[in-house]
Amino acid sequence: MVPPAKKFINNPNDVVTEFIEGLVETYPGLQYLDGLPEIKVVLRADVSAANYDKVAVISGGGSGHEPAQAGYVGEGMLTAAVCGDVFASPPVDSILAGIRAVTGPKGCLLIVTNYTGDRLNFGLAAEQAKTEGFQVETVIVGDDCALPPPRGIAGRRGLAGTILVHKVAGAAAAAGLSLAEVAAEAKHASEMVGTMGVALSVCTLPGQLASDRLGPEKMELGLGVHGEPGAAVVDIQPVEVVVSHVLQQILSPETNYVPITRGNSVVLMVNGLGGSPLMELLIAAGKAVPKLQLEFGLAVDRVYTGSFMTSLDMAGFSISIMKANQSILERLDASTKAPSWPVGTDGNRPPAKIPVPLPFQATKSQESPSRPQELSQQGQILEAAIEAAATVVIKLKDSLNEWDGKVGDGDCGSTMCRGATAILEDMKNYYPLNDAAETVSELGSSIRRVMGGTSGIIYNLLCKAAYAELKANGQPETTPKHWSDALKSAISAVSKYGGATAGYRTMLDALIPASKILEEKLSVGEDPITAFVLSAEAATSGAESTIHMQAQAGRSSYVSAEILASIPDPGAMAAAAWYSAATRAVKEKSQGL
Amino acid sequence: MVPPAKKFINNPNDVVTEFIEGLVETYPGLQYLDGLPEIKVVLRADVSAANYDKVAVISGGGSGHEPAQAGYVGEGMLTAAVCGDVFASPPVDSILAGIRAVTGPKGCLLIVTNYTGDRLNFGLAAEQAKTEGFQVETVIVGDDCALPPPRGIAGRRGLAGTILVHKVAGAAAAAGLSLAEVAAEAKHASEMVGTMGVALSVCTLPGQLASDRLGPEKMELGLGVHGEPGAAVVDIQPVEVVVSHVLQQILSPETNYVPITRGNSVVLMVNGLGGSPLMELLIAAGKAVPKLQLEFGLAVDRVYTGSFMTSLDMAGFSISIMKANQSILERLDASTKAPSWPVGTDGNRPPAKIPVPLPFQATKSQESPSRPQELSQQGQILEAAIEAAATVVIKLKDSLNEWDGKVGDGDCGSTMCRGATAILEDMKNYYPLNDAAETVSELGSSIRRVMGGTSGIIYNLLCKAAYAELKANGQPETTPKHWSDALKSAISAVSKYGGATAGYRTMLDALIPASKILEEKLSVGEDPITAFVLSAEAATSGAESTIHMQAQAGRSSYVSAEILASIPDPGAMAAAAWYSAATRAVKEKSQGL
Repeated sequence: MVPPAKKFINNPNDVVTEFIEGLVETYPGLQYLDGLPEIKVVLRADVSAANYDKVAVISGGGSGHEPAQAGYVGEGMLTAAVCGDVFASPPVDSILAGIRAVTGPKGCLLIVTNYTGDRLNFGLAAEQAKTEGFQVETVIVGDDCALPPPRGIAGRRGLAGTILVHKVAGAAAAAGLSLAEVAAEAKHASEMVGTMGVALSVCTLPGQLASDRLGPEKMELGLGVHGEPGAAVVDIQPVEVVVSHVLQQILSPETNYVPITRGNSVVLMVNGLGGSPLMELLIAAGKAVPKLQLEFGLAVDRVYTGSFMTSLDMAGFSISIMKANQSILERLDASTKAPSWPVGTDGNRPPAKIPVPLPFQATKSQESPSRPQELSQQGQILEAAIEAAATVVIKLKDSLNEWDGKVGDGDCGSTMCRGATAILEDMKNYYPLNDAAETVSELGSSIRRVMGGTSGIIYNLLCKAAYAELKANGQPETTPKHWSDALKSAISAVSKYGGATAGYRTMLDALIPASKILEEKLSVGEDPITAFVLSAEAATSGAESTIHMQAQAGRSSYVSAEILASIPDPGAMAAAAWYSAATRAVKEKSQGL
Repeated sequence: MVPPAKKFINNPNDVVTEFIEGLVETYPGLQYLDGLPEIKVVLRADVSAANYDKVAVISGGGSGHEPAQAGYVGEGMLTAAVCGDVFASPPVDSILAGIRAVTGPKGCLLIVTNYTGDRLNFGLAAEQAKTEGFQVETVIVGDDCALPPPRGIAGRRGLAGTILVHKVAGAAAAAGLSLAEVAAEAKHASEMVGTMGVALSVCTLPGQLASDRLGPEKMELGLGVHGEPGAAVVDIQPVEVVVSHVLQQILSPETNYVPITRGNSVVLMVNGLGGSPLMELLIAAGKAVPKLQLEFGLAVDRVYTGSFMTSLDMAGFSISIMKANQSILERLDASTKAPSWPVGTDGNRPPAKIPVPLPFQATKSQESPSRPQELSQQGQILEAAIEAAATVVIKLKDSLNEWDGKVGDGDCGSTMCRGATAILEDMKNYYPLNDAAETVSELGSSIRRVMGGTSGIIYNLLCKAAYAELKANGQPETTPKHWSDALKSAISAVSKYGGATAGYRTMLDALIPASKILEEKLSVGEDPITAFVLSAEAATSGAESTIHMQAQAGRSSYVSAEILASIPDPGAMAAAAWYSAATRAVKEKSQGL
């Protein structure tokens, strides 16, 4: 035994009445009979026995299998569900109360899972109801395929296949059929379905100790929904092996539990036992479908994946296979308001996958950009600026790494250097330098190609946003005002997606002051070169001011204030350095031309 | 660290592509882009970018949160979901592929959870898509209320409230609104919702070791959906205490995360984190609603309970509260084909409970039955038979217990004796002995009152079925043929509901031969008394023959053949004894009258 199961539940005696209260709060189409805690019946809020003109379909059983059965109450499925205590059959009086509450002149069908307690209590309630004048039919579902047949009826437990029987019966009743017809469809459905479960853990009853019966490396085949022992405890296997074994057991021609042979159509239900996440169930469903098709030669017409009939917190799943024909598919596809019947599962399968759309640019032009034969004046200035910016970043590599080693993960210099090196390399052949916007876009592509992580994305984002702005603004000539607007747009995109702004101790603490000064100086008619130089000074002093800042985002947000107070933000220092180098180069090149 | 998590999953690198395959097998309305494993995009099968005339709503993020986000793809909710690896943001190229696949001329809205990776990758994809000519808007959701605000934006993670934002945006898009309008509704919704989680366990990443960080008696408040540490680790508390704490945190006027004050309307989402069964989530919902109403003075207009945004197999739940107005309620109630949006949750609440219907008999007649002043001839014979039958069972108590001690739980004699004693007691005052059918019904009531367990139900069932047959058949006079039919009906009911038949080593091995002989002799015109006596002999030899039978149902089905071979079935012996005693009494009384 391991320590008591961790549960928020307090008193195990109260769990059923408490979950019913939560259920009706969640689903306004459901009500319960005001007989808690003795009588625990959930029923359709829109049905009353007095004037119900359809066959009522009633199920129930021990609780702990949620959403079964109460979650299947709704138009087109169950009319009422009678809930027992956890893993205990409901008593006769509860079942009778349920029958009386929803059964009109067309009678009711009781769908009962094959456990002695459920059979007897529902049976006695049925006989009593008949003496009260109700028409009652009973269908008992025993879909378990875990044990070989000679064990007698006691061996075939009612498992998740019961949910499919509910759906068939509920749809038949909703279609206005007679009690005999609804019962016949339910009985037929119950004979067409087989189920087998496999568990990785035993469930924990409320208020009780968790059991470790299975051990760490084991799984149990054919386990029951109350944690009763299964057919075999074996080593854990990969999911496709487990699925194969379960399918073989259900479809075994020796036991012949379900009359399914090659060429038949089937529906598949992959049911979680309570503690297995949906991802694992979907993976099992994804394995089961091709196996059914290829290994067993079956058409898989419908797939239901989810937690439909659980065993409290048991980890594992069961697989149910029902032989399908047109009539059964119509009943399964019929609309229902039952909250826990899976939606979006009806209808035939379109192709599962479609081609990935081609990028817009690739459809527009197959040509990759290239360096022009001859550079315009602007192209020469741009080349000088990029070269200077990249070169200074490469030179700063060790300082950046050293700073980053104290406030981050120590690779800022190396990462930036990788980007700068790629830029210098790519510029030789690919940058269309006479087109400023496209060149900025290519800068982003170079960065994206070699710089991983957050900084790669941020610089790529910076380039993309600047490109979009230049493209919209600056064709064919790119003016200083256009560059200023592009810088502003780029900062705004980085701030929006990266989540930082001025004072957060990031590269923006260099770029925001630079952008402000640049915009301000240009707007008052300052000479553009001077405006760039002044804005570079603002970038540098902005970067140096990060030494006094608390980190709010990015690499340093988990570093103590004491350490931070001696080191500037390396990202801001790098940004100030390349920005300043670029402006210096622009100044020199412009004067030289 | 505890042993490796027990999972059916094999290669952790494959889990996302595998679950997507299972997802599209389950839901024919979903498709995926044929770019696995790099590009993992799930999209509506009925939408193609070329002719889509609505705003596309796209979300995504790391996997491991199923059904989020792919389960919310469908008309009226998401148009596409871009899946990353487990707990990792999808890369830019995947997001771009998703945008290109579903975005038509009206543009697309990206709904992004507030994690650095998601913000940056979606942001870069958005900027790239804009340069390709797409209209793109982005809304970032950070609904986490676990940590106090001054931590900066990094602190507010995107949690289950995001699902409600999806629904609002998806419904707005389906209604034909423009991109700006859809984005505005989504942004508004994101500002109206707050969420906080509480976990009992840390989740297990596929292929990794399980962590026991929390310890056996602890829970974590404000834990993140990737298992990142929460605000506090505390002792486990009862569910109502936990719910109260979480609600107070979300609705705290100090942090003022959501602008909700007394008198407002809200919607509630109780979201399972993957490893908690639905029962526990429903219990939490059932506690949260009255607390919101009574402690916080809020109207609770909608409740959503289920596992909507999980963290693999983490045990625990989160609670989200969204301020509601008519517009938000309409968006939440709007129909959708997204498979994982909860159905049956819309509309206003009717009364949760309705009265338990009164039993039919109580409405028919308030009188309890009573012994007639004077007994008819038939009444006298019936009294003698019942008295003899009950008396012999009382005498047999010790023998029955002894036999049962060897093949069952040793209480057969005591249980039967309790029933027989009650019958003798009740007959004095209550049995309407001149009416055979009603007397048989009263026998059942006496038995039900004092005999528990399976045998009590079976004898009650026997009486109810015999009563129904006598009632239908034998009014006002009850003939030997009627008794024979009643016995046959009773056996058939016990067989149907109890699951046993001849040869199963149960009481039916006495009653079935008796019934057969009785029917046979009467049908060939044998004197009724003789027929009864011969049938009693058949009962006795039938009961004795159980010594040679393997148990197939009931108390002895788990006992070895060796032990069984020396002991008759006590239930069959008891049945033969009372049947024989009754026939002897009938014979003697008839001859004496």
